[in-house]
Amino acid sequence: MAEYTFNVEMSCSGCSNAVNRALSRLEGIESIDISLEKQTVVVNTNLPREKVLETIKKTGKTVKEE
Amino acid sequence: MAEYTFNVEMSCSGCSNAVNRALSRLEGIESIDISLEKQTVVVNTNLPREKVLETIKKTGKTVKEE
Repeated sequence: MAEYTFNVEMSCSGCSNAVNRALSRLEGIESIDISLEKQTVVVNTNLPREKVLETIKKTGKTVKEE
Repeated sequence: MAEYTFNVEMSCSGCSNAVNRALSRLEGIESIDISLEKQTVVVNTNLPREKVLETIKKTGKTVKEE
């Protein structure tokens, strides 16, 4: 199990809920912790980081550093 | 060329920009017209409706009627 942190531009709870929903659909996600205030998405998973990043990018949100 | 209209829950310009960005990455999209006020996404494309819908769903946004 690994913990990955992504910095994602999210402006409102609609934004963070969308990221949460998109990640929730992935199999193999243990936990998702999203902070709108910190603009972070923290994921515990067995999946490779790249797969999680790709899913976040498909939400159309900007990932600030990779 | 077909025009498809989707009713998508978007709360702020961050939401609508994300949908716009996700759709822009698809090949074969002629135009995208998003109204935050009307909660609509209108797409002109040669792609099948299902493909466009799938891409919108991957943003994590709720599509209200299909």
